[in-house]
Amino acid sequence: METTRLETFADGVFAIAATLLIIEVHPAEGTVAHGLVHAWPSYAAYALSFLTIGIVWVNHHAVMDQISRANRTFLFLNVVFLMIVAFSPYPTKILADSLRDGSKAAAFAYGLTFTLMSIAFGALWFYAARHHRLLRPDADRRTITGISRSFRPGAAMYALATLSALLSPYLAVALFAAIAVFYVFESAIFGRD
Amino acid sequence: METTRLETFADGVFAIAATLLIIEVHPAEGTVAHGLVHAWPSYAAYALSFLTIGIVWVNHHAVMDQISRANRTFLFLNVVFLMIVAFSPYPTKILADSLRDGSKAAAFAYGLTFTLMSIAFGALWFYAARHHRLLRPDADRRTITGISRSFRPGAAMYALATLSALLSPYLAVALFAAIAVFYVFESAIFGRD
Amino acid sequence: METTRLETFADGVFAIAATLLIIEVHPAEGTVAHGLVHAWPSYAAYALSFLTIGIVWVNHHAVMDQISRANRTFLFLNVVFLMIVAFSPYPTKILADSLRDGSKAAAFAYGLTFTLMSIAFGALWFYAARHHRLLRPDADRRTITGISRSFRPGAAMYALATLSALLSPYLAVALFAAIAVFYVFESAIFGRD
Amino acid sequence: METTRLETFADGVFAIAATLLIIEVHPAEGTVAHGLVHAWPSYAAYALSFLTIGIVWVNHHAVMDQISRANRTFLFLNVVFLMIVAFSPYPTKILADSLRDGSKAAAFAYGLTFTLMSIAFGALWFYAARHHRLLRPDADRRTITGISRSFRPGAAMYALATLSALLSPYLAVALFAAIAVFYVFESAIFGRD
Repeated sequence: METTRLETFADGVFAIAATLLIIEVHPAEGTVAHGLVHAWPSYAAYALSFLTIGIVWVNHHAVMDQISRANRTFLFLNVVFLMIVAFSPYPTKILADSLRDGSKAAAFAYGLTFTLMSIAFGALWFYAARHHRLLRPDADRRTITGISRSFRPGAAMYALATLSALLSPYLAVALFAAIAVFYVFESAIFGRD
Repeated sequence: METTRLETFADGVFAIAATLLIIEVHPAEGTVAHGLVHAWPSYAAYALSFLTIGIVWVNHHAVMDQISRANRTFLFLNVVFLMIVAFSPYPTKILADSLRDGSKAAAFAYGLTFTLMSIAFGALWFYAARHHRLLRPDADRRTITGISRSFRPGAAMYALATLSALLSPYLAVALFAAIAVFYVFESAIFGRD
Repeated sequence: METTRLETFADGVFAIAATLLIIEVHPAEGTVAHGLVHAWPSYAAYALSFLTIGIVWVNHHAVMDQISRANRTFLFLNVVFLMIVAFSPYPTKILADSLRDGSKAAAFAYGLTFTLMSIAFGALWFYAARHHRLLRPDADRRTITGISRSFRPGAAMYALATLSALLSPYLAVALFAAIAVFYVFESAIFGRD
Repeated sequence: METTRLETFADGVFAIAATLLIIEVHPAEGTVAHGLVHAWPSYAAYALSFLTIGIVWVNHHAVMDQISRANRTFLFLNVVFLMIVAFSPYPTKILADSLRDGSKAAAFAYGLTFTLMSIAFGALWFYAARHHRLLRPDADRRTITGISRSFRPGAAMYALATLSALLSPYLAVALFAAIAVFYVFESAIFGRD
């Protein structure tokens, strides 16, 4: 089974989930100028989620580059992974609506979603890479090892950031942003070109 | 006529219908934590519909793999089928909103939608497969027979689950979930690779 | 300039416009069962618009099959055409909300949108086909003539149906449905395969 | 790294951002006919944003035609650029809601979004074109120079139009429309075919 249609479907879900985020952004109450400025928590949550989904999309791209075929199990692992990607506008909206009040529950739910996304993403990669099950024959050993090594800290970092929400939601959001920045620059091993 | 653009359009509708489901998920009233937890019927309905659409997408993928060309009738059968796929966020929302109260009408409407989807999906497959009308020349006989055999119970299972909603909406939802799980594992005949 | 990305973009707009229609469908007030049944004007408007967009998509498909390249003017004609396609969920919602009351304005606005869509669609085809400007070198003369002939009645039929809304909105809606059915069956000249 | 999936993702974001614009269009209050007519500021904002996104899409198309590969930095520049494209329905809605009252803040926010989009678009082009970093080997020197020259006035024109919103929001909107028309006709250097 070719991976072309999987990539089309995945790109569609990534693009729609990222673009739907804006539907939940509303100006704050008051005059137009006041409402535009005071909606900053929505902008921050929008930017954080869009960049995170963008990073995950870039990495999904890098992963699929090493994979030459799909089987039914791999397709369903992708469906579960994409179900979590498509879910992410919901905790983003909750986070945006309660960032000003500093809700611990909102930051926790946000982090939990991305922790689960990270676990599901890792699961589909390690399923494909185990015994080179679905890798393309000419996959580069160093790239494979690099991707695998790069996946390991992901879920743990998100889980820790999520737990930190119980101390302070602002700390958690700062850590989510730091993880995003980390992955932007962590190109030495994952998807170097 | 090539099937490439049909697949792009279909993947778009699948991806959008699945991703739009999240728009209708709202937290319950009360504190943020309470609202997040008590929105579980929405999460359950979201997951059920996303997985079902994901399964149908995987199977549409397997069906299109056996088809090498499209004619106008086949395109319109696909348009009708996709019209039902794109409709599914509506009964999903109704089901989520009334799952706590156990509305028989909501579970019935949900099941009716997926029964009709199953019938429309079967119709486009049997139209294409009849006398090998649109199959690719090298289509494997065993795969063809397997797909046809796998389609038969689909609409009947959904119809029975839909009727069971008149007894108990919870029974119906459990059966919808069971059908989804059945199709995830039913890979022996449909789309084995 | 290749037409591949134009088709991807167009398929995206078609798929999204068609799938967004469902966002505007809401159950009527009252019990769940009553609300589901009495939302029938929304279902009728949804089905009419989805099928019409589906037909236009199939025909855009057939038109693009004859075209081998795009220039800047052709791209902008497509942007204007797609702007009207993407606009269509708005009059669909208005029509659904006022179908029970029989609003002439709603049926007129609905028809006006599809009349303009028909004109824009014709404009891009005749621009591409004039002096074989953008047609592929091996385009079949009979197919070209057939498509051109099939475009001519479109805008006129929609314009007449739109004007009939001033007499009766129900007559207009019946005519819109009849035009859709006409184009489904009118495959003898347009896109025969 | 190939650019195919980047283009699919980008086309998805463009198509969805453009199509989502219609969700925010609502009829004005009063009778159906009155509400349809008096919603003209929404139609104007919808058309302006759809055409602008359409132009940007056509130009992104022309830019990607000259680029043969992507690296990680280029992908992230695209993610940031697409984040702004996907953001644009929000200021469009604000502009539509306050156009009748002539809000300076709304026109300023609208212009600021498109100024930033213009800067991000320029950044990804100049990153790719610098020392022919990502250009395809047979890229035409005159086309490259033409695209670079065409990018220069963009951000400045948008910035000036944005500042003019502080004098008059109507002047600003007229200038935004003029810039769109300018880019439609400015095909002599950018993407001539």
